[in-house]
Amino acid sequence: MRIGLLGVGTVGQAVARALIERRDVLSRAAGANLVLQRAAVRDLSRPRPLAREQLSTDPFAIVRADDVDLVIELLGGEEPARALIAAALERGRPVITANKRVLAWHGPQLLAIASTRGAELRYEAAVGGGIPLIAPLTDDLAANRVTELHAIINGTCNYILTRMAQGETLEEALAKAQEAGYAEADPRDDVEGVDAADKLCVLVRLAFNAQCTPAQIFKQGIRALDPRDLSYGRELGYVLKLLAIARRSPGGGVEARVHPAFLPADHPLARVDGAQNAVHVVGDLCGPVMFSGLGAGGDATASAVLADLVHVARRLALGDPVPPQRESGPEAQVTPMSEVRTRCFFRLAVDDVPGVFAQITRVLADHQIGLASVIQREPGRLGSAEVVLLTYAAPEQALANAEEELAKLPSTRAIKARIRVEGQK
Amino acid sequence: MRIGLLGVGTVGQAVARALIERRDVLSRAAGANLVLQRAAVRDLSRPRPLAREQLSTDPFAIVRADDVDLVIELLGGEEPARALIAAALERGRPVITANKRVLAWHGPQLLAIASTRGAELRYEAAVGGGIPLIAPLTDDLAANRVTELHAIINGTCNYILTRMAQGETLEEALAKAQEAGYAEADPRDDVEGVDAADKLCVLVRLAFNAQCTPAQIFKQGIRALDPRDLSYGRELGYVLKLLAIARRSPGGGVEARVHPAFLPADHPLARVDGAQNAVHVVGDLCGPVMFSGLGAGGDATASAVLADLVHVARRLALGDPVPPQRESGPEAQVTPMSEVRTRCFFRLAVDDVPGVFAQITRVLADHQIGLASVIQREPGRLGSAEVVLLTYAAPEQALANAEEELAKLPSTRAIKARIRVEGQK
Repeated sequence: MRIGLLGVGTVGQAVARALIERRDVLSRAAGANLVLQRAAVRDLSRPRPLAREQLSTDPFAIVRADDVDLVIELLGGEEPARALIAAALERGRPVITANKRVLAWHGPQLLAIASTRGAELRYEAAVGGGIPLIAPLTDDLAANRVTELHAIINGTCNYILTRMAQGETLEEALAKAQEAGYAEADPRDDVEGVDAADKLCVLVRLAFNAQCTPAQIFKQGIRALDPRDLSYGRELGYVLKLLAIARRSPGGGVEARVHPAFLPADHPLARVDGAQNAVHVVGDLCGPVMFSGLGAGGDATASAVLADLVHVARRLALGDPVPPQRESGPEAQVTPMSEVRTRCFFRLAVDDVPGVFAQITRVLADHQIGLASVIQREPGRLGSAEVVLLTYAAPEQALANAEEELAKLPSTRAIKARIRVEGQK
Repeated sequence: MRIGLLGVGTVGQAVARALIERRDVLSRAAGANLVLQRAAVRDLSRPRPLAREQLSTDPFAIVRADDVDLVIELLGGEEPARALIAAALERGRPVITANKRVLAWHGPQLLAIASTRGAELRYEAAVGGGIPLIAPLTDDLAANRVTELHAIINGTCNYILTRMAQGETLEEALAKAQEAGYAEADPRDDVEGVDAADKLCVLVRLAFNAQCTPAQIFKQGIRALDPRDLSYGRELGYVLKLLAIARRSPGGGVEARVHPAFLPADHPLARVDGAQNAVHVVGDLCGPVMFSGLGAGGDATASAVLADLVHVARRLALGDPVPPQRESGPEAQVTPMSEVRTRCFFRLAVDDVPGVFAQITRVLADHQIGLASVIQREPGRLGSAEVVLLTYAAPEQALANAEEELAKLPSTRAIKARIRVEGQK
């Protein structure tokens, strides 16, 4: 089984090393002799665990090579990764990828090519790094109707929020994440929720049999968060996480959204700290199930890539046909965010004048938003007071309208935060 | 795909119900029409979701029936379940079972029959109820060398210990567990660690490629535990759990043991409360990974049984041959308990006389056991004091010898507890 490896960065190196160092274990598990035949690299001059003639700077040459049976794509990013995966599948070659971006945006098209050409496309490493997720969701929970999924699938944000919970500002925590190698120099995709939305898109298709593109997923990042919000949350018994959430909505659709959310402190995900990832799924038979572990890192991601490799090689060695895509039944649609119902946390800076509270509660009542908790502190030196409100569940549209009206109240200096609240307390 | 169901108790009923109510979903996932053809029951007079002529009180008749393609064994217990599974496999029929007892004691023999006859034996439901465990350990972590595994796989004991942590005695907590349906009228297999050892045996074979029988697994139950131990543990930063533990030992063997153990309060397993199950595995590539969820219950266990069913039916529908058993490489052996090194918690009732402490520490020093923490309270009315010791890691044999000598000291009234300590603090 001759492998063509596209990309020898952190994960690619870990895969190459494992293919060489634990070749006997992997070959035994696969029931086939696994050989790292060719690799596409950017820089030919750097030392590699392959001979010079096995290397190329042209990944398309590797996809086209006659002595490659199977392609592992670890370049990341949208292009040329998508085109390479498509080209390999078109030639009937199985592809294993860790590329969440390509899967999220082009997954259905690529899976259709795979299906037409009788090749297999596997992507266990695309979500949750070393945590087995894709296979368990696809196979092990097959008998279930999944009702909801809450996931921490961006380690960078979770690392930052864990530090902010200890009082650091976003800037301080981000700098620490960059120092520790948990955040990139350009952290936008992570802190703005783009990465988490790509991954959620992949999970939503699998777990809910929903038609979903990343563009349909509501995204709100962690940029605007203040350590004060985390500290008020703690006072009310909540922990703040960047969550990727999917849930069947009453209308038959599926909610799909990524945003900061308060979770009750005793929720299993509330205790997932630092760069860890975790996915909490509720099935109608299995009940709540949680998978957690390292969501990133060379070796952890390689673990998932190699699991797919063993699977594909094993099937090829046995001569089994590629399983046809499962017939999926009626597909669900993504519910518009405006219809999603959540509880909400508001933090307002207000003038400390009589009647403020009556005005605020009137606005909420006008939008039929119930009030669950309130914190009001004695005003500071400048006559400004801070009010924290925790509401009962209301539609997003009503919450957004209420926020707008609250901002217009003469006594309101600023809406400092509106953060959704998940989980039962 | 005609199914013969052996046993229509709690799990069997849930499986039968799902096969009828979600037949379309399951059939789509399996790519085959799934039909509940026959069922073996104990009592023909009770109402069932099958016609009278589909029922039999003779499970062997169902295994032999010509119109059954696949057998689901949910009788539990050793015999006749083992004989039925063997008989079905001998006839070349795939078998799905939730039977940890049979798997633990007869797994290798039954898998050998399966292999010879080209039938498949699957048992996702045998450990951890609805939590996907067997498939992830077998497939998704295939590239890893697993270094250690800590599991909470007996929900009854975890429920009892969770209540004892709140101050209840074992008897009170056990009564509550029985009331809540978490413990059987005869709870011996659960509270004595027999059930957990059976399950651990199955996991150890898969995760460590070790030869293992339940008889080789060290077992200590929760009978002797006192709420005082849990409360002292809490004071030192630990939580008490009944753990199933496997770990590669320096000599090349594999430790396999079930006993109460203190875990640091921030260990992921320390937060697994009530009747939940969880398995925490460390692989050399994937790092620590945890799976958690409901370890028992009709629907949760049915979820796992049906995942196996979909898998087998899908393979049969595609005409794929049964994958041969994986070549396993050199098998590890279970390390004798006397060689296992652990830290230990001792609780002693002693006379409050001068020199007691010097005697105790001398005994430990004689056995080269280091002392990490000590709690000594002011003596009670009867001149008896309580001493709690936390040691550094030492071989089981040394700890047992030290315990024996401590018991013989003239100032020792009783060794109230010796409890092993797991996890780094």
